[in-house]
Amino acid sequence: MIQATDKGARIMRWADELARHTEAPGMLTRTYLTPAHGGAANQLAQWMREAGMTVRRDNAGNVIGRYEGQSPDAPSLLTGSHFDTVRDAGKYDGNLGIILPIACIAEWNRQERRFPFALEVIGFAEEEGVRFKATLLGSRAIAGSFDKTVLDKRDNEGRTMREVMTAAGLSADAIDGCAFDPAKALAFMEVHIEQGPVLLDENLPVGVVTAISGASRFMVTAVGLAGHAGTVPMTLRRDAAMTAAEIGLTIEKRCSGIPGLVGTVGQLEVPNGAANVVPGKAVFTIDIRAESDDVRLAAVNDVMAAMRDIAARRNVSLDIHQTHEAKSVPCAGWLQEQLASAIAGFDLPLRRLPSGAGHDAMALAGLTDVAMLFVRCGNGGISHHPDETMTAEDADIAASIFMRFVEHFKAQS
Amino acid sequence: MIQATDKGARIMRWADELARHTEAPGMLTRTYLTPAHGGAANQLAQWMREAGMTVRRDNAGNVIGRYEGQSPDAPSLLTGSHFDTVRDAGKYDGNLGIILPIACIAEWNRQERRFPFALEVIGFAEEEGVRFKATLLGSRAIAGSFDKTVLDKRDNEGRTMREVMTAAGLSADAIDGCAFDPAKALAFMEVHIEQGPVLLDENLPVGVVTAISGASRFMVTAVGLAGHAGTVPMTLRRDAAMTAAEIGLTIEKRCSGIPGLVGTVGQLEVPNGAANVVPGKAVFTIDIRAESDDVRLAAVNDVMAAMRDIAARRNVSLDIHQTHEAKSVPCAGWLQEQLASAIAGFDLPLRRLPSGAGHDAMALAGLTDVAMLFVRCGNGGISHHPDETMTAEDADIAASIFMRFVEHFKAQS
Repeated sequence: MIQATDKGARIMRWADELARHTEAPGMLTRTYLTPAHGGAANQLAQWMREAGMTVRRDNAGNVIGRYEGQSPDAPSLLTGSHFDTVRDAGKYDGNLGIILPIACIAEWNRQERRFPFALEVIGFAEEEGVRFKATLLGSRAIAGSFDKTVLDKRDNEGRTMREVMTAAGLSADAIDGCAFDPAKALAFMEVHIEQGPVLLDENLPVGVVTAISGASRFMVTAVGLAGHAGTVPMTLRRDAAMTAAEIGLTIEKRCSGIPGLVGTVGQLEVPNGAANVVPGKAVFTIDIRAESDDVRLAAVNDVMAAMRDIAARRNVSLDIHQTHEAKSVPCAGWLQEQLASAIAGFDLPLRRLPSGAGHDAMALAGLTDVAMLFVRCGNGGISHHPDETMTAEDADIAASIFMRFVEHFKAQS
Repeated sequence: MIQATDKGARIMRWADELARHTEAPGMLTRTYLTPAHGGAANQLAQWMREAGMTVRRDNAGNVIGRYEGQSPDAPSLLTGSHFDTVRDAGKYDGNLGIILPIACIAEWNRQERRFPFALEVIGFAEEEGVRFKATLLGSRAIAGSFDKTVLDKRDNEGRTMREVMTAAGLSADAIDGCAFDPAKALAFMEVHIEQGPVLLDENLPVGVVTAISGASRFMVTAVGLAGHAGTVPMTLRRDAAMTAAEIGLTIEKRCSGIPGLVGTVGQLEVPNGAANVVPGKAVFTIDIRAESDDVRLAAVNDVMAAMRDIAARRNVSLDIHQTHEAKSVPCAGWLQEQLASAIAGFDLPLRRLPSGAGHDAMALAGLTDVAMLFVRCGNGGISHHPDETMTAEDADIAASIFMRFVEHFKAQS
């Protein structure tokens, strides 16, 4: 049995210990079903058992710990997050949402405290999409929305996901059996670092997520006419780079000043550009996200219209290819209210904010109502990077809020 | 002896024949002292001899044909251009300025016509700077301004320029002896395709160059803070790409509307950019050129001040590294007037324009007064590309103007 201790310190120590399971020396990289991934799964299962849970591993590789309620077969309040990582990752993205509930359950277990519902903590085996270029594999299996065409995708070494699963002792053919029974799920609540600077900027330890933003993403190729930087007068140019620049600033302006809306040109390149050549071609991406789908789609429409005007005026052609489109996933109002009450119980200000990043809760929303508690990131809000950080104090506050939320949890009638 | 024929057709045919001397099958690439370069030199020497010239090759590899004047040892009116090319080049850049005068001299030779001065046609062995990353090697040797540190530069195969020269039978140690005696040079007049769209746009076959524009060039690295495209609100971003975009558009605006001034962002890149990441770094070049140095330097100063303001407002740092600075090289007024008279003799409108590109005349200006006659480019003014083109009619007009210029040439007293 895990001994009573400061929860924040334990969570930070566990994050450090879990980070030792890496496939790349000197950094944290843990992709789906590598030996390091298996090591992390075993570690999580051990902590779950020590916290009083029964543990099973499903055929997607998810690690699922169940802390029984006051009666056997009670329906479950689900929680959890993912334990795979990006390359050269931070220690808290995903992992925090697994170890924090385990630490809380360890305390209830020590107190021999049970609830009218079971608690299930899920370590989702895959969320980041690094190995097979497909995301949310673990949570989609649980939600019953796993896309089986992904099983034929290959990793960088040419092995299919199906082969990799078989080698890890998992049965790809049985993946449908991972689906959780919706009738047994009361809700899903995910704790996650914010991966952004909002809480840090406002000096708040936690926030309640309103929705996981919808996103529209495009790849754009602008083609003008290359020319000599010295000999083509400004009036006769068809400069693809300046077309991209003007479009980028238009996106930036259109997406500013509206809460929850963001627009980004993340890739921008003049292929084979030279200092003395007017760019004939530029390639760039557009990523527009918003809490509200209406807000997002209005921005996308305005940006597309502006792009056509800019390109026509500059006599540059645009090839616009949509690469991604996802609707906003709202967090359930009744869960947000119970989270807000838990926060209010500690006299903390309530900050509601959308999640601009995708999370396992997106997939779980297909199974049950979802909520998310964001925890402040340090270092300017950096994530997906070894500089990702958070404090033990914030871990402790978040764990206390999680405990109060669970202790006062009332399932929707 | 070359037979009388249409000069334009001959020039076009010679350009085709010369283009067969290439080091890359299926395209024209002819860099300094390769076998293809030697083949082109031999071909030029042969045409020069057939046109009645005595030919020598100097230790820089320049091919120099002399058509004697009415008296031996008469001072020379110099002309010519370069016969090296960029990779995958057009046929006329450089080469036109050698073969056009040879075609004209062939006609005078047929007429047994001599002038009070000698004519020397120089095929400059190197101008483009492809092989040793140093430009104007041939014309600088003739002008007596050759930088001997270049002899130790290495090509992509690791051979020094000195070694390559020795293998080609040239003496690097004797390169000072290539310098032409200024007392024997009356002027230098270079015929060149425009390499731009101005004459094409104005439907004119030729133009008189006023100056070879000065240029300032910079490499800039903008460093902000990378962030998640979904989670960092617009107000908290330090987007390096949008900083670069705003600077680019500022340069474009500042350099528009002023004749002879151009500004270009030719390289623009977000290193390792991803669609879902706010760019933390952007790298771009700035190239600003103008006929007038005052106009150029005023634009550079304004751009630098604007860059500082933009970067400060966006909380992005800039590393600005100047990579090139060259003053404007004016074409001599007295030569421009004699060229203008020659053009007027054919009832053609007079178009004066700066050359935004560098040419051998830049180096020759250190030896004697220079002039340039630009010939219209087709295909939107494209150059340094296999689509570079011009018409036989324009070649004929340019040759006729060159002949009238020479026939009426009066040296400055």
